[in-house]
Amino acid sequence: MNPVDIPDVLTEDLRNNLSSLAVATITHQLQGRGIQHAFLSGLRPLNPRQRLVGRARTLRYVALREDRVSEFSAGQNAQRRVVEAVTNGDVIVIEARDVPDAGTVGDIYALRAFHLGAVGIITDGALRDTEAIAELGKPVYHRASHGSTWGRRHMPFSHDEPITCAGVFVEPGDIIVGDTDGAVVIPHAIAAEVAADAKAQEHREAFAIERVRAGESPQGIFPLSEERRPDYEAWSEQQ
Amino acid sequence: MNPVDIPDVLTEDLRNNLSSLAVATITHQLQGRGIQHAFLSGLRPLNPRQRLVGRARTLRYVALREDRVSEFSAGQNAQRRVVEAVTNGDVIVIEARDVPDAGTVGDIYALRAFHLGAVGIITDGALRDTEAIAELGKPVYHRASHGSTWGRRHMPFSHDEPITCAGVFVEPGDIIVGDTDGAVVIPHAIAAEVAADAKAQEHREAFAIERVRAGESPQGIFPLSEERRPDYEAWSEQQ
Amino acid sequence: MNPVDIPDVLTEDLRNNLSSLAVATITHQLQGRGIQHAFLSGLRPLNPRQRLVGRARTLRYVALREDRVSEFSAGQNAQRRVVEAVTNGDVIVIEARDVPDAGTVGDIYALRAFHLGAVGIITDGALRDTEAIAELGKPVYHRASHGSTWGRRHMPFSHDEPITCAGVFVEPGDIIVGDTDGAVVIPHAIAAEVAADAKAQEHREAFAIERVRAGESPQGIFPLSEERRPDYEAWSEQQ
Amino acid sequence: MNPVDIPDVLTEDLRNNLSSLAVATITHQLQGRGIQHAFLSGLRPLNPRQRLVGRARTLRYVALREDRVSEFSAGQNAQRRVVEAVTNGDVIVIEARDVPDAGTVGDIYALRAFHLGAVGIITDGALRDTEAIAELGKPVYHRASHGSTWGRRHMPFSHDEPITCAGVFVEPGDIIVGDTDGAVVIPHAIAAEVAADAKAQEHREAFAIERVRAGESPQGIFPLSEERRPDYEAWSEQQ
Amino acid sequence: MNPVDIPDVLTEDLRNNLSSLAVATITHQLQGRGIQHAFLSGLRPLNPRQRLVGRARTLRYVALREDRVSEFSAGQNAQRRVVEAVTNGDVIVIEARDVPDAGTVGDIYALRAFHLGAVGIITDGALRDTEAIAELGKPVYHRASHGSTWGRRHMPFSHDEPITCAGVFVEPGDIIVGDTDGAVVIPHAIAAEVAADAKAQEHREAFAIERVRAGESPQGIFPLSEERRPDYEAWSEQQ
Amino acid sequence: MNPVDIPDVLTEDLRNNLSSLAVATITHQLQGRGIQHAFLSGLRPLNPRQRLVGRARTLRYVALREDRVSEFSAGQNAQRRVVEAVTNGDVIVIEARDVPDAGTVGDIYALRAFHLGAVGIITDGALRDTEAIAELGKPVYHRASHGSTWGRRHMPFSHDEPITCAGVFVEPGDIIVGDTDGAVVIPHAIAAEVAADAKAQEHREAFAIERVRAGESPQGIFPLSEERRPDYEAWSEQQ
Repeated sequence: MNPVDIPDVLTEDLRNNLSSLAVATITHQLQGRGIQHAFLSGLRPLNPRQRLVGRARTLRYVALREDRVSEFSAGQNAQRRVVEAVTNGDVIVIEARDVPDAGTVGDIYALRAFHLGAVGIITDGALRDTEAIAELGKPVYHRASHGSTWGRRHMPFSHDEPITCAGVFVEPGDIIVGDTDGAVVIPHAIAAEVAADAKAQEHREAFAIERVRAGESPQGIFPLSEERRPDYEAWSEQQ
Repeated sequence: MNPVDIPDVLTEDLRNNLSSLAVATITHQLQGRGIQHAFLSGLRPLNPRQRLVGRARTLRYVALREDRVSEFSAGQNAQRRVVEAVTNGDVIVIEARDVPDAGTVGDIYALRAFHLGAVGIITDGALRDTEAIAELGKPVYHRASHGSTWGRRHMPFSHDEPITCAGVFVEPGDIIVGDTDGAVVIPHAIAAEVAADAKAQEHREAFAIERVRAGESPQGIFPLSEERRPDYEAWSEQQ
Repeated sequence: MNPVDIPDVLTEDLRNNLSSLAVATITHQLQGRGIQHAFLSGLRPLNPRQRLVGRARTLRYVALREDRVSEFSAGQNAQRRVVEAVTNGDVIVIEARDVPDAGTVGDIYALRAFHLGAVGIITDGALRDTEAIAELGKPVYHRASHGSTWGRRHMPFSHDEPITCAGVFVEPGDIIVGDTDGAVVIPHAIAAEVAADAKAQEHREAFAIERVRAGESPQGIFPLSEERRPDYEAWSEQQ
Repeated sequence: MNPVDIPDVLTEDLRNNLSSLAVATITHQLQGRGIQHAFLSGLRPLNPRQRLVGRARTLRYVALREDRVSEFSAGQNAQRRVVEAVTNGDVIVIEARDVPDAGTVGDIYALRAFHLGAVGIITDGALRDTEAIAELGKPVYHRASHGSTWGRRHMPFSHDEPITCAGVFVEPGDIIVGDTDGAVVIPHAIAAEVAADAKAQEHREAFAIERVRAGESPQGIFPLSEERRPDYEAWSEQQ
Repeated sequence: MNPVDIPDVLTEDLRNNLSSLAVATITHQLQGRGIQHAFLSGLRPLNPRQRLVGRARTLRYVALREDRVSEFSAGQNAQRRVVEAVTNGDVIVIEARDVPDAGTVGDIYALRAFHLGAVGIITDGALRDTEAIAELGKPVYHRASHGSTWGRRHMPFSHDEPITCAGVFVEPGDIIVGDTDGAVVIPHAIAAEVAADAKAQEHREAFAIERVRAGESPQGIFPLSEERRPDYEAWSEQQ
Repeated sequence: MNPVDIPDVLTEDLRNNLSSLAVATITHQLQGRGIQHAFLSGLRPLNPRQRLVGRARTLRYVALREDRVSEFSAGQNAQRRVVEAVTNGDVIVIEARDVPDAGTVGDIYALRAFHLGAVGIITDGALRDTEAIAELGKPVYHRASHGSTWGRRHMPFSHDEPITCAGVFVEPGDIIVGDTDGAVVIPHAIAAEVAADAKAQEHREAFAIERVRAGESPQGIFPLSEERRPDYEAWSEQQ
């Protein structure tokens, strides 16, 4: 996909909306739309308590084949190309076939990507230079850490094409949201409506949490029943 | 099992005793009694360095079958029932078949359970709302984090019945102790004697640690030999 | 292997050199020499951000067989022997066959080993007494935590013989370096040259990082091209 | 569940219908109804090319806990009870938590069950006495073979209650169909309609197979398009 | 890749050569050239004792995302396209991300592919209609059997592009050889020389096997030493 | 261990006894003596329905380290040595760390071992030349098949020393029995008594099987109760 054709739906408003929403709420909204394969299972945040909202830029590794690796790593290989093509607000999302025992991203490319405006990196393989990357202070999600370069198991193959990352289909332009639970992929075509509905859901949940903190049972307020909707609406007006 | 029939052996004394004991010591005592299947393998503490002592209340998920899920999730389903039935000092222990890629407990039910007196939650599946639950400040053990609800893979089925959690048989009323190592199940029938023997063991180990810190080899003092018992007893009197 | 025959190549200089080097750089250097099996995959640091440099002393567990376990655990068993034979700067490296659900090292032997000069412990099985060991403040790498003793799955069998730990062949005397990524094994015969080349590599990377921070693309500076070598050399002189 | 209350929907007609249908077709029909969790993943037929159609009778193992095992194995334990309660056309379906390294069923109980009219056995654990059971000539599905008894990892706990087997929820009375692909669970409430629709599907596929054998592309005939329906209907009348 | 551009190196001669060679010998030859990632690990032959030699035609599945599946499965989807584009001597090789619990190929597409000249099918996912496919009598390699369609976990995405199958990079046009061990990928660019060298190796091994059958030790004859080369050459002349 | 010192307890009588006994019975007898770790989990017979009885000769692989592999594979390496040292009735048992994706034994060494009197081969890694080895017609147990040589992941290290194979401790001289279930290790020191007790157990089971075939419930006859012992004894006299 030509980078200029990558969908760009992440308006300032949408970003702000998403920044306040829990990954669990967004995942739930997607489940409600029948999308059960959206959360990136098995990855963990490098720096818990950070939040990530960005646009997916994709990188696909294929398996190492020793007779081809020099060709795929030479010059402006796919990894270099995707990093250089980063624009503000992008998240690099890497398909590394869930392989835990080979590095994918190291500190120098991470630094370059963040310098160019990347807001996060996600790999379903391993990080290397874990501590140096952590010190860059940006949200990163990964399966493992490993000292080797990608050359132990991978070849960078293509970028800005659809991939499978941690069991989830990701297209360039999809919206990635991350928090301590992990990261979720929102299809770009429905990102705005998912955000709006998730925001409404969190508002109802804020009411529920307040009531539960006050000693009520969740029954009727989580999820909100028709009987209790007036209470919620009254509470809502007072906010 | 009717909640009123759940064994309740956790006296104030026993709780105090157990609160000072390492999970490793208790597990060792159970091994010494031939019980090799007591420690919940593969779970990790949400907030390391916390300690958990409580009485098991159990919840069993079965696999999702899409034609039955609305029935099992409706109204006062098993998950809601076990949460509402929590009494002071209980630990909710969830059989989620070691499935890492679907949430089990989220923040609102966790909040409710803790409000009703729960002292901890254990799931061999995934947590959702990980950060919000961590902020509740209570001991929680889990296999993974995941943004989805249980509806991705599970149906809540029954509660306060025997279950298998993380490879361990757990009956309602069994005693759960957790620390940074993880959590262990003490059969309620032998909880008092296990605690007493574990306390005695830790006392002997305190002597060993002091001697090892002073430069002695563990030989003869860990485990304590008959030859060194008088030294231990002398030390013991001075404490 | 008789402990006195264990190679001892870790001079003060080499230790200092290695102490400043990233595991990722060292692993890369080994890959460059055709050694793809050197990084201990799947282990994690108990205390991230610590660094480990030491000489491998090995301990091999075999699978528990209940008719032999009392014999292999009696008296000065292999675990006790390797701990007592620790000298300054050693790292105990344990082959526990990647088994996550049985403890290997607990706090008392860890304490003893550190007292005798050990600078780290590595096990491809589980730690027990995780918190107490963490408080000793030394670098420890492990696959998991577990409350049980080794007797649940293992028997200590031999020490100071070659082993396989976390998928890597380790000989007594090999050099172990660890950081937040994990730990890597440097064959003792090439430790000095690997350290020297890794140091040179990190120096080139320091230049690259400075340039990337300043807004340059990594192209031509990471890895360093012949065209940019003069720039690097000029920078290098100014350091 | 009292055995007399177990649903019994497997009429002679339904059994005949199902006996001619492929597991793949039935699974597809269930997918079409939104049921993605029906095929028992990871089990293999002991005697390929046999077909199984029967009514589920369930047995649940829980994890071994050494202090309770004698109680759960004594006398008429759950395994003995379910075997003795077998009636003609039943399939014993065992929840063994996907554990591959402990036997569940051996030859004597298998012999007894088949003597009482069982038409198959399914375990998501291991078989023992594999060869002797194979010689009984009945359909059996299992994850592995293992020489040990269930006492290595399990305790028989209950029977004729809902279970999870190989990732699938199974209720007593559900219909099990097996062929070389493996086995699938048809919810008893929809068994007749699934069979009818699967039969119709296979009829359409027989047309498609005939056409493909004759050199046509599957396009338009698999799945059947509206354009080609008349051809199918003409063919159908000639059968 | 346009099908007409797919390399076509499989001459009649090369096919004949490869048909007589063991997968183990070919894999060894590739290892000797530094290619350790060529054998498709974890797949098994549907009909052992068959031999496969063919040209790779590739099909890539990506993970199911429920909002996109109807688009990717509609009409002439990638799976249909690759099957219809099969020419004589082709092997369809499917990237299904090593997922064991969803079907990929069923009997009708298999039938069509074989009708069009395919000589084999390889999937790193599951087969469905296992028995019907087995009866087609062609070489098929797969990880598992499963009753579901690909729609449970996959979407057909592209074909005749490079893929990763069972951990191995496969390009359209690469040569696939299979026997009871499994299947191996020979890069098309070196297929002829690998075949020639493998044939020479098997000739030497035939000598070794004859000598070992006659009671000699493999020492010096496997691998062949310079000392024994004259014996081999003498034997060779007599064949 | 010097081969001449390897225990040799397999008398003609013991071999005959064991040849008629099921692996399941022997494993049960070992469980009754508290030995739960004796059956080699996860391995399968190459030629089901064959029986194996032999004396263990052990071979240990360690992980490949590329700087050492030529040294460990040169000349009379450990694999060659153990094969050449085979005597009549031996079983070669290989520790390959449960690695499925690298060959261990190929056809020429298998042929040599069988020529020298080996009665079986067991590897917890992969076979190569699977079909050629199967044609030798001897019992072989393995985890997988793979086309590569051991050099992909292993180095042969030592032989005739204790090893761990498929999770079981094996000493040279231990007795290996295999059937369709898989293979079990009988400690040499108790082989005779285990065989005797297993024979008695099978005799009781033969009575039970006869009664169950005749329509009796296993209750009281399997296991044999005191009440039914007279019946068994009467039956026993008539045999």
